[in-house]
Amino acid sequence: MARPKAIAVVSGGLDSVTLAHLLHAQGYQLHLLSFDYGQRHRKELFFAERCAQRLEAAFSLLDLRQLGQHFKGSALTDESVAVPDGHYAAANMAITVVPNRNAIMLAIAYGIAVAEEAEVVAFAAHAGDHFIYPDCRPAFIEAFGAMERLAVEGHGHPRLHLEAPFAHLKKEQIVSLGAALGVPFVETWSCYKGGEKHCGTCGTCNERKEAFQLAGIPDPTDYLQ
Amino acid sequence: MARPKAIAVVSGGLDSVTLAHLLHAQGYQLHLLSFDYGQRHRKELFFAERCAQRLEAAFSLLDLRQLGQHFKGSALTDESVAVPDGHYAAANMAITVVPNRNAIMLAIAYGIAVAEEAEVVAFAAHAGDHFIYPDCRPAFIEAFGAMERLAVEGHGHPRLHLEAPFAHLKKEQIVSLGAALGVPFVETWSCYKGGEKHCGTCGTCNERKEAFQLAGIPDPTDYLQ
Repeated sequence: MARPKAIAVVSGGLDSVTLAHLLHAQGYQLHLLSFDYGQRHRKELFFAERCAQRLEAAFSLLDLRQLGQHFKGSALTDESVAVPDGHYAAANMAITVVPNRNAIMLAIAYGIAVAEEAEVVAFAAHAGDHFIYPDCRPAFIEAFGAMERLAVEGHGHPRLHLEAPFAHLKKEQIVSLGAALGVPFVETWSCYKGGEKHCGTCGTCNERKEAFQLAGIPDPTDYLQ
Repeated sequence: MARPKAIAVVSGGLDSVTLAHLLHAQGYQLHLLSFDYGQRHRKELFFAERCAQRLEAAFSLLDLRQLGQHFKGSALTDESVAVPDGHYAAANMAITVVPNRNAIMLAIAYGIAVAEEAEVVAFAAHAGDHFIYPDCRPAFIEAFGAMERLAVEGHGHPRLHLEAPFAHLKKEQIVSLGAALGVPFVETWSCYKGGEKHCGTCGTCNERKEAFQLAGIPDPTDYLQ
């Protein structure tokens, strides 16, 4: 019998790479989707592709840069806006929101899932995202799944559904899980600044450092500071 | 006071061009979005842009052709699959479904609506679409709006919402409305075959002819047969 298929949105960050390893361990045949929306930290995409190679998964890099041009004013896509330092959960991180990013990426993932008769669309929203990204909250995840059941009814695999297995996990729990699954964390990227090394001072770098500390797992990341 | 802003998904077909004229008549400042997903009938996009010029609206053509390559097996995007002749509501039209098309286009429209502080995202699903397109049904429209309220909460215009004013209208009612609004129907495109003239035999051509007949409005379309 053919293995069931899963479409996973993978940025190349710690969370989504761990998600891909989790799905792989669960026996899914994987198709990883990454999105280039003009993000400053597009370096992460390299690690998404590496993850696909490692797991012998299909990989598609979808080019939404034209769309990114419409999202002026976000520090993630607008070169004229600086990435703020500080804590990930702080209000100043709101500037890093790309409007409606998850709905856009998940809708595209569902289109591909229907075309490829996949059973699962998965993404790696986690509990720490809820402070600043409304489209990472459990209520959004549930509403999105409900919308898609209606949108694709009668098409694709009858079991097609949305999974967000980290929706209620803190990042340190994802680090613990990733360590148990043998995820090579050094082949994941978090820093929003997208330089040669992780800066060590932006919101996501702080969140990454803290997660390894709280999980009691050695952090293999080479930070600038 | 600045006019409220609306983002409308406009294909260049009769329904969506009438939608744009309706929103314009209601006083909205318009941004029309068209999508090139590799559809065979991309000729329609020319009429979307003409509509924007006529209404002095902003116009964006979003290139999703890379995505269209993933949608093999649909007659709308796959050159090797013939567009079926017959009635629009018939089962053989299901082959023209591009999976999850409306969710993808509307999610992108919402992202732009947040960035531009628009109050409305609008699209032209109508009652005749319900037979074959699950993502045109009122239940989908309601679920999509509910999902987006959660996805963008705290971002964009507080009044941002989804409108589908034709969701319960038959196509002949849209023709009547368009005539009342002065829509130049000859500058709209329906035929899925996308040739020099409307073929007059495919599902959408039959639907178009019938709508003018039922509305009692002269059909200005130059059909091949």
